[in-house]
Amino acid sequence: MDYKGRLERLRQAMGRHKLNAFLITHLPNIHYLCGFTGSSGTVLVTDKGSVFFTDGRYDEQAHAQVQASKVKIVRKSALLAAAQWLRAARLRRIGIEAAHLTVAERTGVATSLGGQLRLVDAPPIVEELREVKDPEEIARVRAACRLGVGLFHRLKAVLRPGIPEAEVAATLEFAARKRGVEQMAFPTIVAGGKRSALPHGRASLAAIPSRGFVVCDFGVILAGYCSDMTRTVHVGPPSAKARRVYNAVREAQQAALESVRPGITAHEVDGAARNILKKRGFGSYFTHSTGHGVGLEIHETPRLAVGQKKILQAGMVVTIEPGVYLPGDLGVRIEDTVVVTEQACEILTLSPKDLITL
Amino acid sequence: MDYKGRLERLRQAMGRHKLNAFLITHLPNIHYLCGFTGSSGTVLVTDKGSVFFTDGRYDEQAHAQVQASKVKIVRKSALLAAAQWLRAARLRRIGIEAAHLTVAERTGVATSLGGQLRLVDAPPIVEELREVKDPEEIARVRAACRLGVGLFHRLKAVLRPGIPEAEVAATLEFAARKRGVEQMAFPTIVAGGKRSALPHGRASLAAIPSRGFVVCDFGVILAGYCSDMTRTVHVGPPSAKARRVYNAVREAQQAALESVRPGITAHEVDGAARNILKKRGFGSYFTHSTGHGVGLEIHETPRLAVGQKKILQAGMVVTIEPGVYLPGDLGVRIEDTVVVTEQACEILTLSPKDLITL
Repeated sequence: MDYKGRLERLRQAMGRHKLNAFLITHLPNIHYLCGFTGSSGTVLVTDKGSVFFTDGRYDEQAHAQVQASKVKIVRKSALLAAAQWLRAARLRRIGIEAAHLTVAERTGVATSLGGQLRLVDAPPIVEELREVKDPEEIARVRAACRLGVGLFHRLKAVLRPGIPEAEVAATLEFAARKRGVEQMAFPTIVAGGKRSALPHGRASLAAIPSRGFVVCDFGVILAGYCSDMTRTVHVGPPSAKARRVYNAVREAQQAALESVRPGITAHEVDGAARNILKKRGFGSYFTHSTGHGVGLEIHETPRLAVGQKKILQAGMVVTIEPGVYLPGDLGVRIEDTVVVTEQACEILTLSPKDLITL
Repeated sequence: MDYKGRLERLRQAMGRHKLNAFLITHLPNIHYLCGFTGSSGTVLVTDKGSVFFTDGRYDEQAHAQVQASKVKIVRKSALLAAAQWLRAARLRRIGIEAAHLTVAERTGVATSLGGQLRLVDAPPIVEELREVKDPEEIARVRAACRLGVGLFHRLKAVLRPGIPEAEVAATLEFAARKRGVEQMAFPTIVAGGKRSALPHGRASLAAIPSRGFVVCDFGVILAGYCSDMTRTVHVGPPSAKARRVYNAVREAQQAALESVRPGITAHEVDGAARNILKKRGFGSYFTHSTGHGVGLEIHETPRLAVGQKKILQAGMVVTIEPGVYLPGDLGVRIEDTVVVTEQACEILTLSPKDLITL
């Protein structure tokens, strides 16, 4: 990964925000800037250099992983060690990650700085840098998505009426583990029958019904990067209403996929899906946004939602996942992870989307 | 669960800190105070009442779960809705959870309050209330621990040289899921051979060696409450050194278990284990603390560590988990979850601790 290039782009952004230094504590941002994957540390970036602070537990790991930043192993909190370093360096405007640092941590930093320096609540600068993925990152998301598609085959093989949703999820997760997955990207959703109408229906002990939709939404983390896909299958013969809902979601998802290209706004992609569902009479049953960025985290910016003015660029990786949920009755969601290309987009979760009846 | 009693004890603590209101945003604290298990919301507690704010996604769930607090479903952020309510109520000192609220969230609250009210960085008041568990909570931790012990039998049945650590972990997690576990309490550790010397050696693709220790550290979440246990088994015949290390850790763990009773300090329990390991020549290889609280979260206070003055009380649930790690060579950790009783402690993870050779 091009850690030097990332630090360079970060420094340019720091210049635009008039920051002389930036304390980075959000772990995915640390991973992005220096390669460290452990669970504790702080990156301090200044005009002149970059230092990664962590404690003795991560001595070996930090020296093995961290690139383009110096490594300092400290006895106390990494954050306070970085603050003490800053105090000696006499820089003026110090950015903190306001969306991640807790109030207590900020107080600790301010105390360590001794009141001479100015802490500035920085916007999500690193998150913005992370929105456009480089080719190596896209390759990793692609590999994670390919593995996810393979898991869906395994899932279809075990899904049948009467077995608990949790067992379907467990089988999928077991297969993922055997294929080298570090962990699932989020709690696996397997939601059958009436539970398919719950947009976040985590796999429960409920049995797969003899007839009805089953929403299957799952993702893996492979080499640090997430995948995300949803397929909704039907057990038994679908009713006319079930077909109508499925086809509307399928059409909405296709319209959103076809809208994706550099230069379009996030709002417009959301609208492409939402307008179809409105036309089909399901507008008020599409209760969430159309998608989100995917990368080191499962939910990143940009959000593809009403009012989001962010302009899509080549290299962004986003999900396209409209859904319709009729409370107490049924639900359908279809989701792909795609990468924005120079002209349009490429689907990374290549798996059929015609209605599958099991 | 006695949510009314919990709110009453919270109000007494708020009185000691001269708080007229307290904004609670940390999800396990919300779960503890009102029973809500979803992933977004805010509890606002005043002298006179308690209100739980959340958004439309959780309408049904909040009304089904929340007890002893009013439920308000809001369109915007639950936290900002609570702040607006406070603005109208004209209370003076408003506590925030400084260890959990982000700087950006605090800014949002302060802006909503319009500068008339004083925000106070509160210490971890709810976390302290949670330290002593009530009988219903202890019953849940006991059930989770019993399930954990059952999983260890399954683990021993599959552990053999040549299979990847991740497959051992996956088998254990699959069995957990089938038994109704919501999710694992933390990433399962299965660390064989040289990897046993890594205190946090998550299950990897490395194969179980033909000879050496395997550290197995795992926990489940059942009905909201966590279990935590570690056993270290040996594959093939153990060397004299391996036996020496194992016996020292076994003896240290036993000494710490026998020290636990109401009135002892966390520091003293840690010392009971640490002194044995020092005497046996392994003091500098015991690189972490002896234990931690367990409940709704896998890591809670009290910490059983050097310098911790907290006095143990009946009803606290803690782990006792000394370990010795010889870098690049071998490691052993033995861990039980125990509840402090009127006289001593009761081990909740009842499973043999003599050296098991597979």
